[in-house]
Amino acid sequence: MTDLGLAPTTSRPLTFDVLMPAPADGSTRARLGHLHTPHGDVQTPVFMPVGTNATVKAMDPDDLVEVGAQIILCNTYHLYLRPGHERIERLGGLHKFMAWRRPILTDSGGYQVVSLGDFRSVDDDGVTFRSHLDGSIHRFTPELSVAVQEALGSDIAVCLDQPVPPHASSRREVAAAMIRTHSWAERCMSVHHRADQALFGIVQGGLEPDLRAESTRMIASMPFDGICIGGLAGDESAAQRREALDVAVPLLADDPRPRYLMGLGSPADLLDAVDAGIDMFDSVLPSRVARNGTLWVPEGRLNLRNTRFLDDDRPIQDGCRCRACRSFTRAYLAHLLRADELLFYRLATCHNLTYVADFMERIRMALAQGRFPELVREQASLRDNPSTDGLPA
Amino acid sequence: MTDLGLAPTTSRPLTFDVLMPAPADGSTRARLGHLHTPHGDVQTPVFMPVGTNATVKAMDPDDLVEVGAQIILCNTYHLYLRPGHERIERLGGLHKFMAWRRPILTDSGGYQVVSLGDFRSVDDDGVTFRSHLDGSIHRFTPELSVAVQEALGSDIAVCLDQPVPPHASSRREVAAAMIRTHSWAERCMSVHHRADQALFGIVQGGLEPDLRAESTRMIASMPFDGICIGGLAGDESAAQRREALDVAVPLLADDPRPRYLMGLGSPADLLDAVDAGIDMFDSVLPSRVARNGTLWVPEGRLNLRNTRFLDDDRPIQDGCRCRACRSFTRAYLAHLLRADELLFYRLATCHNLTYVADFMERIRMALAQGRFPELVREQASLRDNPSTDGLPA
Repeated sequence: MTDLGLAPTTSRPLTFDVLMPAPADGSTRARLGHLHTPHGDVQTPVFMPVGTNATVKAMDPDDLVEVGAQIILCNTYHLYLRPGHERIERLGGLHKFMAWRRPILTDSGGYQVVSLGDFRSVDDDGVTFRSHLDGSIHRFTPELSVAVQEALGSDIAVCLDQPVPPHASSRREVAAAMIRTHSWAERCMSVHHRADQALFGIVQGGLEPDLRAESTRMIASMPFDGICIGGLAGDESAAQRREALDVAVPLLADDPRPRYLMGLGSPADLLDAVDAGIDMFDSVLPSRVARNGTLWVPEGRLNLRNTRFLDDDRPIQDGCRCRACRSFTRAYLAHLLRADELLFYRLATCHNLTYVADFMERIRMALAQGRFPELVREQASLRDNPSTDGLPA
Repeated sequence: MTDLGLAPTTSRPLTFDVLMPAPADGSTRARLGHLHTPHGDVQTPVFMPVGTNATVKAMDPDDLVEVGAQIILCNTYHLYLRPGHERIERLGGLHKFMAWRRPILTDSGGYQVVSLGDFRSVDDDGVTFRSHLDGSIHRFTPELSVAVQEALGSDIAVCLDQPVPPHASSRREVAAAMIRTHSWAERCMSVHHRADQALFGIVQGGLEPDLRAESTRMIASMPFDGICIGGLAGDESAAQRREALDVAVPLLADDPRPRYLMGLGSPADLLDAVDAGIDMFDSVLPSRVARNGTLWVPEGRLNLRNTRFLDDDRPIQDGCRCRACRSFTRAYLAHLLRADELLFYRLATCHNLTYVADFMERIRMALAQGRFPELVREQASLRDNPSTDGLPA
């Protein structure tokens, strides 16, 4: 077991074991790991479903266990506004509130707050923003973000950062946001005290290789429990994202801490980022596209709005273990979607989250068996020859 | 075991045993029964949740089994329009389509079609109406209603009738609709051939005692498998409804067939109608009010939009076996409702359908133990002293 670098293992709320390090031949930076948290263990690489309002949309905790969710993400910004972090704390914390016994990671609110556009202003001390619910004015600082996350009682908290959209930002803006993110990281670190909660730092630096490298070194120099790679999974291309990861991850090669790429969710993107050395992911993508009628299968994706599914008596995916595929046909799901029936949203979400969970399990199996590069090649050849409505996501 | 009157037991798809007849002392006409259908048995008195579009809103079949639904109702009008009865037949029938293995009763479409108001016209041959989905013009006849229900393959089909709203209809209109309903009952009977499907006739006659009596005698004279009491559960008062039942049910006193009052769903109304001698019920009420935030408890009802629930860490109902009460607090459910989260609709529906199922089970237990009149008195005294936001429903 590897400890977390700068702090003694025994005092940390989170430990990370690299069970299978990246091979020395450089064929991949992918690695197999095991994360220990106060609410249980997580096998990595892992995908975290998103439970914005203390619920993964349309799922209950039993559904999440059934799809194979090991850990979920909840949004600090949303829970701060409604029902309020102090209320959740009074009610016994976020785990008890939503009846989820497994680990929870909370984001910092930075992404949500900064993405409000005209409804916010950022300064060195923090962010002032208008609530998307009622227009009321609020202010997030690094200190408040940590306090909110401590009140929620997540297993893993994350520093407040200032992400910037790569394509809409000048080098000067990227640099300024990076410097501010570093300053906020130090402030978060200095006020975070909850002993049963880990704290992750966030690397920024956009698509500028030197800034990305500088930010990686800076964040890695601090005694965080894990390293988030922020400011990606936005409007950059897959190649640009890979270039940024190829700058950041090698600088963390000897760093024993988990690496978390925020906001990525399509199977092809997940596979590439695992190959680049990432351990943790989150995204609303699988569940959001599911609710819109797009279901992921090994051959690509099915759009249930297509009329050809109305008479299709096959399950979404042969052999799939999910609740939708065990009992229902494509025809029934296509009917529920057209009738705007609530059951559709649950069944479709069950399928796509199961698909991603099983995809990550395949990745972990391949890593354990030393055949991850074959899996990457196999998936690439599938992508060149889609037999469905398109590639996953 | 009692057979179905005019047809030999062995040839009928449905049989009904009266396990405990109404007591000879006249204290109640309530009775305990057992309905045998092609998809299993049903204990009566029974409440049937409504699965309009081949799904009970927000529930999956496992949820329905868990709440204790013995039989559900599906709407012929809706399924005829979408996805189409012929499609459902091609896909193996309604049970297979919606993965529900227990009994299904289909209504005839009469209520939905006639309630379209300006969008329909009724004549002696049938009813022409515009689809609420796309405005297309359709025509329902007794023959088509039976054909649609045979294609769906429900366990119990129902004759097409012409219900009229008691308060908005003259005696002449009530009489005309009743005569038409009788003629349609004969036509339905003559074209119904599916051997594994029962057919129920419908009594009309509004609030006119002589017409209600005439209709009851007429429908009871035909070899239906069961008798529906239609045209109630609308805008009449509870006392008016009871008067109509007190006309109809005594005329069926020696009739061994099940009696089904269409459209009733509040606990107080159910109890009174059981007392009046009714065996079967259906309504969207428990699930509709649940989705609006009103949850039923033994003391009355809770409106989760009330701010006092935001910090209430108790379950909806102490000791309730439902999915909502087993894991979640009023505070969490009140939060989900405000956030318009899909999970709310499922949990709230689970609770109210469990509440009604358990209420019917209490009724059956009281009947089995000969203390039904005590249950009626006990519930009446609760209603005089509500300690919550009001009475159920």
